[in-house]
Parts: sequence; structure tokens; C-alpha cells
Amino acid sequence: MTSLDQKFAALAAENAPGQEVRQSLSALDTQLIGEPLPGIPVDFSHGDVDAFPPTPGSAEAWNAGFEAGGQQAYTEYRGAAVIREGLAERLGTFTGCPISAKHELIVTPGTQGALFLALGATVTAGTKVAIIEPDYFANRKLVAFFGGEMLPVGLSYLGERTGNGPNLTELEAAFTAGAEVLVFSTPNNPTGLVYSAGDIAAIATLARKHGVTVIVDQLYSRLIYSGETYTHLRAHKNAPENLITIMGPSKTESLSGFRLGAAFGKAELIERMERLQAIVSLRAAGYNQAALETWFNEPEGWLQNRIDAHQAIRDDLVALFRAAGLDLAVPQAGSYLFPAVPSLSVTPDVFVRLLRQQAAVTVTPGSEFAPATRSSVRLNFSQDHEAAVAAGQRIVKMIEMYRA
Amino acid sequence: MTSLDQKFAALAAENAPGQEVRQSLSALDTQLIGEPLPGIPVDFSHGDVDAFPPTPGSAEAWNAGFEAGGQQAYTEYRGAAVIREGLAERLGTFTGCPISAKHELIVTPGTQGALFLALGATVTAGTKVAIIEPDYFANRKLVAFFGGEMLPVGLSYLGERTGNGPNLTELEAAFTAGAEVLVFSTPNNPTGLVYSAGDIAAIATLARKHGVTVIVDQLYSRLIYSGETYTHLRAHKNAPENLITIMGPSKTESLSGFRLGAAFGKAELIERMERLQAIVSLRAAGYNQAALETWFNEPEGWLQNRIDAHQAIRDDLVALFRAAGLDLAVPQAGSYLFPAVPSLSVTPDVFVRLLRQQAAVTVTPGSEFAPATRSSVRLNFSQDHEAAVAAGQRIVKMIEMYRA
Repeated sequence: MTSLDQKFAALAAENAPGQEVRQSLSALDTQLIGEPLPGIPVDFSHGDVDAFPPTPGSAEAWNAGFEAGGQQAYTEYRGAAVIREGLAERLGTFTGCPISAKHELIVTPGTQGALFLALGATVTAGTKVAIIEPDYFANRKLVAFFGGEMLPVGLSYLGERTGNGPNLTELEAAFTAGAEVLVFSTPNNPTGLVYSAGDIAAIATLARKHGVTVIVDQLYSRLIYSGETYTHLRAHKNAPENLITIMGPSKTESLSGFRLGAAFGKAELIERMERLQAIVSLRAAGYNQAALETWFNEPEGWLQNRIDAHQAIRDDLVALFRAAGLDLAVPQAGSYLFPAVPSLSVTPDVFVRLLRQQAAVTVTPGSEFAPATRSSVRLNFSQDHEAAVAAGQRIVKMIEMYRA
Repeated sequence: MTSLDQKFAALAAENAPGQEVRQSLSALDTQLIGEPLPGIPVDFSHGDVDAFPPTPGSAEAWNAGFEAGGQQAYTEYRGAAVIREGLAERLGTFTGCPISAKHELIVTPGTQGALFLALGATVTAGTKVAIIEPDYFANRKLVAFFGGEMLPVGLSYLGERTGNGPNLTELEAAFTAGAEVLVFSTPNNPTGLVYSAGDIAAIATLARKHGVTVIVDQLYSRLIYSGETYTHLRAHKNAPENLITIMGPSKTESLSGFRLGAAFGKAELIERMERLQAIVSLRAAGYNQAALETWFNEPEGWLQNRIDAHQAIRDDLVALFRAAGLDLAVPQAGSYLFPAVPSLSVTPDVFVRLLRQQAAVTVTPGSEFAPATRSSVRLNFSQDHEAAVAAGQRIVKMIEMYRA
């Protein structure tokens, strides 16, 4: 079982968001400095759906689905046809390029489910995959699980806006070295960077030239802050032929408790994803799929209010961390902040655990996103505004207490 | 991409239950004999949750989960701790052996999700897996997907009760040949055979002797017909050390639209399953998990009524098919019938499609369960009683019309 042991060692999940409760904190006592920092506990590892509640009408939609009975309980594995029809229309409009509801769209158990299926459909033993660093941590775990080989491509996010973005030289080198797949998120998780129109065009052109399959995770592409613009790869005139776009209502819309996502693009890849879904979990929970009717169908003004509220929290936290001298990028979209923590007297991993034990603040360690970002921490600031700012102040105080 | 093409060819899902709507029926016209057989359409590919509705209180439990907010939306990947505590207690009592809620239980997206995680945690490239034939079709697809090698073990189900069961000689031969994993269902899907106490004891002893990991799918172990007894492998004194038991409320309890399942057993394997769940779909949908509070907590008499209603349908269909000369076993549990269809003028695959087009009856072809059972068909008779019997009569009539 040695090869299975190795395979699962690479999937260690104890630092993953939400799993912190399983960690033993007792060993920390010897490294603890000073007194507890009291305050309302804030779990920045994921958004707070009590502070930003689910889309209006989502529970009612679920109940209507339940009442509809068997037809809603047992859908096609790729999701109920009638729901896919409306969704394909709305997602096609949003992303600027039409989608065939019958052939080019699959409803998945969350965006995580979509990523799993997309990588499972394209990566097998020995497949070379270009991975952006930093990027969503599961991308790397998925490539490892399916036996692929990672070719890392750097992402600049801390400098001047015009200099930020993926390292296109490294990207082309990865493609030349045989990468068959590229997976990346825009807005980037964990930094909030939105890929520029120029970078999207370059990715399109390079992927086409080298015949690379592209999986683009656009989970946060609705939560775009004022003054920013978003470019959809799939609407680009040179968009790669083998392209899967992933979205879901679990973040901006706070529907994470429904486990719903969607992937759309190349029909042959969607077909593979459905075959895989058939053995993974059959389908996204049938009644839950009904809540997709509320997606891109929210009440007038709802989305703008949500964006404004997040922007206000972002601005306060950025000001707070910058005043404390932390290096961080201003997210252009989404609800992640990724400040770099200066050199401390404890390891970054221990600091993250101390934050939780001593200051009631949960963050995700930067080591989850790229080997090089281990001294950064990720905060999902979709939280109660006041509690988030107070927790941010406790983070700053903890850094002062533990500074090397 | 050739190896991926092969991998996904093995996962063909167009005959899978619920996927029939995606089949093209136009090519059938040349093989059609006689007139349409009208009647209420019956889809025997899965249970009808309108005829047998979800457990009382399940929708209310979901709504309470939704109201509970963030704590229910974001659970540990293995499921909410408080729900696991009650469930471990009840499942431990039911299966006759205690379960640690903290270490030995994971809540999954359906029983399919549990099977995927269990096989993903134990099978990798080259792992030899003993597979019962016939058995649930996804078992074989899962082993193929993870790169395992199948060692088939026959199951007798059509003879005298005392002679039925797994071929223990073949089972031991598979273990001797290096099988590291055995996966099987009892009650067996598709035949409804319940493994005898003697066979369970033999499996326990052989698995222990050869150090084999056992995954036992007990999805239907609550729906046991009068006069039958059920033996839980995990309660056996020689139960194998590496054992995972799988159950779920999607069948007897008609909660399929919630996508909930549970796996319990060896802590190290549950830990691996959770790590895999973290990259597959994070968790069973948070709000849905709340419906598990109704499981093994149903109103007094509810389960017995459900068993009695199914037994009455079973008896009518068995009488009907036996009168028509079809070879079939009387299911001891569950809601599957697996009659053998005699030689026809069309292939078994075409007959299944004709049944749907001409007689409004959907069944699952036997080829899904084992190569040798391709001329059988599986019926899930958890249906409206009257409609099911009428549909059974149409099946008999169709067999007469197409008899070779």
C-alpha cells in the first residue's frame, strides 16, 4: 500500500479551510507569548453566510424542487434539462459567448466538483499540467491525485498593476515542454488579481498554438470592484478549442451550503465529465439544483449592494494591513486578501495555529497555494464588517508580539 | 490523449439509470414489430419517490439546517460533528458494533459518493480487486477508473436458496492471486440476494487470513422481507481489520434527492476518504446533512409499512414473471428484480430500448452488472403498485412479440 500512502500524504487536508477543528493545539503552549487577545471569533478561512446570507428565494426554490418530487430528485447526471436551458442562456450572456444547454454544460456538486471532473477528464498518469503559483490549492492536489506532472508558472501580484500577471515566458516554456493542460483562476485565488485583457489574449494565442486544453476557474468573476474590468477567455476570438470554464454560486451568492457549480465548454470534455460524475456522486443533489433558478436572476440592485459591502471591508482591511507595514495587493475582485507576514520567532504554520488559539482568528496558511508563499496568509473577508476589522487588528497585534 | 479516451470509453454511461433520455431512439424503427403498447410510463431504472415519498420530516430538517446558517453550510469535510455523533450511535446499534463518531464515520454525497471514496482510498494503478458478478455496475467502473485489475468471483442466485451465494472457491483463488480489496453488496444489487451468515463468516475468515481490505455496500440492509435474516459483516467476531461499511438513506427512505450517504469503519481509511472528499466536492451539501437526523429516527411503524408495501409489489411481479416462464430469483431484500429474458429476435440492448419506445417501460440492461448477465434486465420495483404490475404485463407481452 506504499503507493497509496504516498498518494494520500500528498492530499493532507488539515490546513484546508474548515478542517482546522481537527488540529491538536496542545503542542502550541510552549511557543505561546503573552496573553490571549479576546474578541469575536472570525473564521477567515471561508465566507460567513450569516453576514452575507444566501440569495433571496434560494430556500423557496429548494422547497419547490422538493415538492416537484421525482423529476427533480432524479435528473440527468449533468443536471436537470430545464435548469440547464435557463442557465446556459444566462451564463452565455454573462461570459459573452453562447452555450449549448444540451451538449456544453454540466451542473456539478460545487465548483470543487467541477474542478475535480474537469481535471479528471483531462489529466492521467504522466500528463503535464501548467499550474499558476500561487493559485487555488486544490489544483495542485488534483494534478497529483490523477498522476499528472506539474509545470509551475509564476504569477506576479505585489508590484505595479501593469507589471502584474502570469509570467508568459514561463507559460510558453511549460507549453513547449509538453504541457497538455493549463488550469488557472481569474480572479486569482488567493490574491484577487484579475487577468488583464492582454494576458487573456496571450493565453488564448499560446494555448491555441500549442494545442493546450485550458480550464479556467471564474468563481469570483461577478464580484468585480469599481473601476476594474473583467475579460472572459471563452469570448476571445482566439479562445482555445478545448476550453472549460467553471463558475458557481457558492461565493458571491453565498449558496455554498447547496453545493452547486457549473462547467461549460467543449462538448467532448463535458461528456467525459458526466461519465466521471456518474461514478463519483451521480449528480449535484437533485432538489438543490432548483436553487440555480435564482442564479443570475437576483433582485435588482442585489449584486451591486453585495459588491459595495465587500469593497468597504476590503478598503478597511487593506488600510489596516498597509499601516502595519504588511506587503499585500489590493484585490480587484473576489473576497480574498493575501498579505505577506514578516519574519517571526515562530514558523508560519505555528503562527497560523497561534492566531486561532490566542486571537480567535482563523486564516489559511499561504503554503497551501504555492511553496513560495508559505509566509503569507489568506483571508476571506466576506465577513461581518466590524468583526473582520477587529480581527484584522488582532492579526496585526499578533505579528508585533511574535516579530523575530 | 489516447489513454484518456480509453479510460473514458470504459465509463460509458448511456445505459445507466436516468441517462436513457440522452439515447437516440430513431435507429430502432427498422427493428420494431407490432403496435405501441400503451400504459402509464414506468421508469424501473430507479425508485419512484412520488410513489414512496421521502421520510416524514426530511424537508423540515433541511429547512432547519438552512436556518442554522453558516455552521450547517460549512461542516468538516467528513460531515457536521453533531450529526455524526447521533448517526454513529444509531448505525452502531443497527449494525451491531460501535462506531467512533470522531474517527470512524464519514458523511458522503450519496452512497455512490461513499463507494467512490472507498475505492479511491484503496485502489490505485495495479491494485487487484475481487469483484462479485453480478453486482452494482459502478464497482467495475470504479476499479477501472483507478487503474485496478478486476478478479471476478461468481455469484449464484437463481438456484435453491441453500446453494446460492458467492463462489467461495473463486473468492479464495482471487485472494491467493493477490487481491488486496474485495467490494460487494449485500443485499446484492441487482438480484436481491442476502448473503447468508455462513457466507459472511467465510468472507470474514478468508479476508483476515489474506489481509484483504473489504468494502461492503449495505445500501438495502433495512428493507428485509418477512422471514429473512441479515448478517452484518462488521459485527462478526472475525471481521477483517480493514473494513468499510457503506449505507445511505437514498433507497428505502427515498432521500435520493438529498444525495446523502455514510461510510464507517477503519479510521485510517476514513481519513483517506476525507482527504479525497476534500478535492472531489468538499462535503455532502451542508444543509442536506441536516436531513440525516431523520434517518433511523423515523416514526413508529413507518419502516414496517414500507417493507410490507414493497413485499406486495414484489410478490405480484414475481408471480407475473414466473407465470410467463421467466427465470428469476425472489429478492430477499431491497427493491430489485433481475429476471432473465429468453432468446429474442433482437439483441438484449435493442430490446431494452424498444421496451422504452414501444411500451413506455424503462429497465436497466443486465450487461451493466456482469458480462454474463446481458440478457437479464433489472427492475427497481419501488413504484406505484398498480402501474408497476401493468408495466410488468407489458414487458411479458413484449417478450412474446420479440421471441426468437
